[in-house]
Amino acid sequence: MAILVVGSVAFDTIETPSGRAERCLGGAATHFALAASYFTDVRVIAVVGEDFTAEHEAILRRRGIDTRGIEHVPGKSFFWSGSYLTNLNEAKTLNTELNVFQSFTPKIPREYEDSEYLFLANIDPVLQTEVRGRMPKAKLVCGDTMNYWINDHRENLLRVLEGLDGLLINDTEAKLLAKDANLVQAAERILAMGPKSLVVKHGEYGATAFFSSRSFAGNGRKPILPFRAPALPLAEVVDPTGAGDSFAGGFFGYLASQKDLTPSAFKKAMFYGGVMGSFAVERFGTERLQQLDPKEIDERFALFRELSHLD
Amino acid sequence: MAILVVGSVAFDTIETPSGRAERCLGGAATHFALAASYFTDVRVIAVVGEDFTAEHEAILRRRGIDTRGIEHVPGKSFFWSGSYLTNLNEAKTLNTELNVFQSFTPKIPREYEDSEYLFLANIDPVLQTEVRGRMPKAKLVCGDTMNYWINDHRENLLRVLEGLDGLLINDTEAKLLAKDANLVQAAERILAMGPKSLVVKHGEYGATAFFSSRSFAGNGRKPILPFRAPALPLAEVVDPTGAGDSFAGGFFGYLASQKDLTPSAFKKAMFYGGVMGSFAVERFGTERLQQLDPKEIDERFALFRELSHLD
Repeated sequence: MAILVVGSVAFDTIETPSGRAERCLGGAATHFALAASYFTDVRVIAVVGEDFTAEHEAILRRRGIDTRGIEHVPGKSFFWSGSYLTNLNEAKTLNTELNVFQSFTPKIPREYEDSEYLFLANIDPVLQTEVRGRMPKAKLVCGDTMNYWINDHRENLLRVLEGLDGLLINDTEAKLLAKDANLVQAAERILAMGPKSLVVKHGEYGATAFFSSRSFAGNGRKPILPFRAPALPLAEVVDPTGAGDSFAGGFFGYLASQKDLTPSAFKKAMFYGGVMGSFAVERFGTERLQQLDPKEIDERFALFRELSHLD
Repeated sequence: MAILVVGSVAFDTIETPSGRAERCLGGAATHFALAASYFTDVRVIAVVGEDFTAEHEAILRRRGIDTRGIEHVPGKSFFWSGSYLTNLNEAKTLNTELNVFQSFTPKIPREYEDSEYLFLANIDPVLQTEVRGRMPKAKLVCGDTMNYWINDHRENLLRVLEGLDGLLINDTEAKLLAKDANLVQAAERILAMGPKSLVVKHGEYGATAFFSSRSFAGNGRKPILPFRAPALPLAEVVDPTGAGDSFAGGFFGYLASQKDLTPSAFKKAMFYGGVMGSFAVERFGTERLQQLDPKEIDERFALFRELSHLD
C-alpha cells in the first residue's frame, strides 16, 4: 500500500568525528522516503528551491519514489548545518535557513489522494493538521515532532496528536511533551492526548512502543504490554543525522507492506525501524540508504533477532 | 553450585522522589547474595560492626545464605547515604563512612573453599586479587568495580581484570575504563585487558554482553555477536540503590544453577539479571528481594521475553 509522507527535503552540512560533508541531500521526508522505499510505494509532499536539481530528484526516483508532490519554487531549499563533534547523540545546530520552507503550503496531487498510509514528518503542526484533514481516507496515520513545536506550538501540536494512530518521538521529546521524567508515566500521558500508540526512540539503546487501550493491541486484553526493540551496537557512527527519520521510514514502510495491522506486524516493524536506522548512520547523509540491497536488509533483520532473542 | 561473593554489607540511608529510608540493610554483597539466593547456594565474605545484629543476619539466613564468612568486629558497619532527588539514574553521595571496612582483610572459611563460582563485588581491587588468588579451583569468576577504582587504582584493577571470566559494569564505567566513548570500541578494549566477557548495564535500557574470542562463545565461530537484554519499563522506581548488584546476583545465580556455561545459558542469565534488578528497585533497600516468590520470578521472566521477542 502506498505511503504519503509530508515533510522537509533539505540540504545538510554536517560535521562529526568521522569527517565533514557539505550540502548532503537530507531532510526528514528524504530519509523517511528512502528508508520506506525498500518496503512499499512512497509519495512525497515537500517544497524545494532552485538548488534542488534533476540529479537530486533522480536519487529519489531511482528508488521508485513518486516525486510529483515535490513543489519547485524560486529561491533556496531548506538548509541545516550541525555538529556532532562534542556529542554524537545530540546535534549542535550551527545554522538553520528555512528559505522556501518558510512559506510552504502543502498541495496534494490528485494522484496521491488514494494513499492509505500517511506519515506527518516533523514540520509545523498547523501544516500536519491541514494535510491530515485533506486525507480523510487514510487508514493509518503516524507522525513525528520536535522540541520546538512541543515548547512553543503546544496547542497546535495537541490537535495533531488527537488524530494520530502512532506518534514516533525520542526520549527527550516524550518527557518534554508529557512533562514527566518517568518514561512509562510519560507514555500514559501522551497516549491520553490521542495517539493510539507511541514509539519512543532511545538512540543507541533501541526503541520502546506503548499502546493505548484504543489501539489495535487493546482488543479486550489487558494490560497491554509495551514492546522493546534493540538497536545494533555499532563500532562507528559516521553521521547520526536522519537516524530517527530512517527508523520511522523502516517502521511505517514495513507496516504499509503488510495486509493487516497486527501486534506481530507492529513488533517486526519496530525491528525494521532499527535496521534502517542502523544503515542510515553508517555514511553521511542518505548515502547508505540510496543503495541498499534487499538481501542486506534481510540479513540485518536476522542479526537484530539474534542479538536480542533467547532462542 | 555454590557461589562465593566477597563485597560490602552495609547500612544505607536513601532519599528518592518516593520517600526516605534510614539505615536500610544494603551493600553490594547483600543485594547480590539475596538476588542470587533464588537460584543457588550463596556464601558471603564481608565485615560488619556491632550495629549489624542477629536480626540483620537472619534476613540473609532466611534466604539460605551462608553467613559464616561475615566477620564481626568492634565498631560500626560501612555506612552510605545518598540522594536521587535530582536524578533517579545517578545517586548523589551525601556521606560515606567506611568504618570497619577500612581495615577489612577477607578471610575465607574452610567450608567455602570448594565454591566453584566466585563473584568479586565492588571493593578494593587489591582485595579482589587476594580473594581470587586463594580460590584457585573456582571455575567461573566474575566481578564488578566502580569509577573510583578505575580512576585512582587502575594498575591494581588491571590485575583483577586479567583473571576474570566476566566483568559487569555500567556504561559510564565502561567508557571510563576504556577511555573510549563508543560502546563497541570500549568493549573491545576492555576485553583486550583480560575479561572473557563484558556485561555493560544500561539502567532503564537493559544490558549488553560482549564476548572475547577466548570466551566460551568464541569456539571457532566468528564474529561473536553481542547480546542485548531488555529492562522492564517501570512506572515507579522507588529506590535504584543496588539495582546493578541485584542484576549481577540474578545473572550469576542463574549461571551457577546451570550444568554448563553455554551461549543459551548466558543469554537467559542476562534476562534473569534484568528480572532481579527490576524487583530490587520496587522497594527501598533489599526489602523486595527478601520476600520473592519463585513464581513471581518465573512470571517476570516470561514478561521480559514477551516484551522483547517477536514471537
